[in-house]
Amino acid sequence: MKVVKFGGSSLANGTQFRKVANIILADKERRIVVVSAPGKRHENDIKTTDLLINLADSITNGGNESLALNGVLERFAVIIRELELNDNLLTSIENHLNELIDFYRNDEARLLDALKASGENQNAKIMAAFLSNLGEEAHYVSPKEAGMIVTDQPGNARILPEAYGEIQKLRNRSGILVIPGFFGYSKLGNIVTFPRGGSDISGSIIAAGVEAEEYENFTDVDSVYSVNPNLVENPHEMKEISYQEMRELAYSGFSVFHDEALQPVVIKKIPVTVKNTNHPEAPGTRIVSRRSPNGQPVVGIASDKDFCSINITKYLMNTEVGFGRHLLEILEDEGISFEHTPSGIDNMSVIIKSHHFENGKEERVLHRIKTELSVEDVQVERNLAMVMVVGEGMFKTLGVASKATVALSEAGVNIKMINQGSSEVSMMFGVDEKDVDLAVKSLYHAYFTAVEEPTKA
Amino acid sequence: MKVVKFGGSSLANGTQFRKVANIILADKERRIVVVSAPGKRHENDIKTTDLLINLADSITNGGNESLALNGVLERFAVIIRELELNDNLLTSIENHLNELIDFYRNDEARLLDALKASGENQNAKIMAAFLSNLGEEAHYVSPKEAGMIVTDQPGNARILPEAYGEIQKLRNRSGILVIPGFFGYSKLGNIVTFPRGGSDISGSIIAAGVEAEEYENFTDVDSVYSVNPNLVENPHEMKEISYQEMRELAYSGFSVFHDEALQPVVIKKIPVTVKNTNHPEAPGTRIVSRRSPNGQPVVGIASDKDFCSINITKYLMNTEVGFGRHLLEILEDEGISFEHTPSGIDNMSVIIKSHHFENGKEERVLHRIKTELSVEDVQVERNLAMVMVVGEGMFKTLGVASKATVALSEAGVNIKMINQGSSEVSMMFGVDEKDVDLAVKSLYHAYFTAVEEPTKA
Repeated sequence: MKVVKFGGSSLANGTQFRKVANIILADKERRIVVVSAPGKRHENDIKTTDLLINLADSITNGGNESLALNGVLERFAVIIRELELNDNLLTSIENHLNELIDFYRNDEARLLDALKASGENQNAKIMAAFLSNLGEEAHYVSPKEAGMIVTDQPGNARILPEAYGEIQKLRNRSGILVIPGFFGYSKLGNIVTFPRGGSDISGSIIAAGVEAEEYENFTDVDSVYSVNPNLVENPHEMKEISYQEMRELAYSGFSVFHDEALQPVVIKKIPVTVKNTNHPEAPGTRIVSRRSPNGQPVVGIASDKDFCSINITKYLMNTEVGFGRHLLEILEDEGISFEHTPSGIDNMSVIIKSHHFENGKEERVLHRIKTELSVEDVQVERNLAMVMVVGEGMFKTLGVASKATVALSEAGVNIKMINQGSSEVSMMFGVDEKDVDLAVKSLYHAYFTAVEEPTKA
Repeated sequence: MKVVKFGGSSLANGTQFRKVANIILADKERRIVVVSAPGKRHENDIKTTDLLINLADSITNGGNESLALNGVLERFAVIIRELELNDNLLTSIENHLNELIDFYRNDEARLLDALKASGENQNAKIMAAFLSNLGEEAHYVSPKEAGMIVTDQPGNARILPEAYGEIQKLRNRSGILVIPGFFGYSKLGNIVTFPRGGSDISGSIIAAGVEAEEYENFTDVDSVYSVNPNLVENPHEMKEISYQEMRELAYSGFSVFHDEALQPVVIKKIPVTVKNTNHPEAPGTRIVSRRSPNGQPVVGIASDKDFCSINITKYLMNTEVGFGRHLLEILEDEGISFEHTPSGIDNMSVIIKSHHFENGKEERVLHRIKTELSVEDVQVERNLAMVMVVGEGMFKTLGVASKATVALSEAGVNIKMINQGSSEVSMMFGVDEKDVDLAVKSLYHAYFTAVEEPTKA
């Protein structure tokens, strides 16, 4: 059994729906389908979810409700027409939306959540109807019926542990099950959306719940690339990467999955495949628990900007047990998460995202560091970027670090920081923001396109 | 005014005393002299301090007291004879030791401290007498008279802040002042020795107290070398290094100064010179607050063994605010200080000295990490060594990191960890212990002896 999820661009119009249906029907294992709301059909189009947010806003703030509602209905109407489905479907969508509006009119947060969720919800109904029309046994299954039991705070759903037992029962259902992504139901019966990861997290939870053999995630790219395709032409496609490699890349500028979306499948070690709805014959990228070694120690180069480094100096720092803990405690008190903490004997740096230092927090944190830790010097270094060279087991390979440092040096990029631990799947280089694109390109070139020099005799 | 300290080998016999006197008299600024106890005269000799510890032990544990006392007195007798000083001096030393023994006989810890300290104490009296005999105005000044007021715990003296005001008054005294190192007096009047750093710390405190222009530290090497002289023949001599560079090197296998010995002069920014009693015309090594740039980004290569790395993996670790703090808190609870903490997105390593994991502590710490932090995996990696490339401002120099990584790669050394922060004066490489000497030699060669290739056009 496979759980297969389709993103918004894969369901933006009738043509896309037909491609999706073909994909579903091409593999009998594709038994559970998780759908997003209709996405953009062209660059200047508006996503259905944004039309729904606009509708909620018009109700709450006294805008033109019927205009906003018509905008939403028109998106679905076009799809229903293109798929030659019964007009009753549109009427039922309209009725459903009006019911939600009446029910939640005086509860801004619940109204927003319920309307946002209805983009996915209606799209699942359309997909189930379309598959049935094609003569397949297909059922719309609401998240409530599917067992997606979540916490109750609007816009901040977390799946509850008992949900998994319920979701597992979907295995016993016949036919193709079409489930809307992006939301679940709380025990109080409220519709609650996930804060991040949208339909990806729904698919991941359901794949984990039914213990699927595979979680297929269809989007609009052929694969995950080894480097940002805006920086490098025809970048290398990754055939297979590990969860850990994916996490390092996702964190550092690869917008494939949100941080938390994959957690449920990672725990169950279910492989994930990223594929292209518009080009389903391409093999895509497989994300697995353990990667088979293939002689390629580095799988990708990622980068991220807007970091700063708090550089602290104190004579005899290393003899002070508790210094590091106290420093991290101050940051934790102030709600600041840190990225790396390179340290010397009498120095320690903490690298954080720059936004943590907005609204006067910088002054307060530096003051606390100076006074509570009695340091001699504390300086903030700004405009830092992190470049990550990612690859599992790369540190068992001799010369990986020298290839990177030589490439950066030859490109004229000054390395300000290096962080590499022995069990890690990445090597981090801190550079000036102005150098970051050059750094990424030179590292990509060194690992992926440079002709290898003959090995020394 | 200079404070000048002489180590044990510089005062081991009459010949050495004469060299020391010549050095003192060669510079009118050498007004305060801090002396150690007589050290070894040859490889198999016993240091006076060890003879004194033996004496204390024979008293406490019922050994042959008079034999042990004679051993001590004989060391001083030889020196007094060689310097042609009055025999009364030896009698007064004998009386003094007997007084200490009578007074502290029933207090093991105080007796040990008082006897240990007397090696320096008697040597200072001999040096003052010798300088007087040469026709110079010279005075023995006891640490009590000098204002060396310390805490009262035997063997664990810490200087008290009020001491510095007392010590400053030494500026007003005439003649050459000879002060024994290694101990002070508590407010209760007890002799208390310093736990670490011996006479180095006494000299450093006195230099800071009198605000000397310079603290000269005479020992038996011409200079501090850029690398362990046991690994490399004719190693590069360091002319000038900064306190910070000294600290990084001292920590990692350079046994020039103990960690804490220099703190008093560092705070007052007093330059320190390491010189050779047996070759005083050599310029020695100057240790200064700020180093003048001289085109040499790297000043030395150091190394240290017996480390292990606790490697921790947890999915979504980076989203957990407080993870790092909690981890360091567990180590702090267990009294474990850490060296470095390289981290990835879902990994964190903590590098500690291996001895921290003795006596069942490893099991307890790993258990706490597993349970309190709910991590997926925690592994201990052993037999690690750290190699430090040290140099202030080296990271403003392009290509320093690539020179190191290429040298290690060409030597066949696999780099397991790298740690470098942007304000730091060192770059750390973690390697297998078996590779450490090779790593040090290849790095030394790369920075100090390799012929520079012509710069690329």
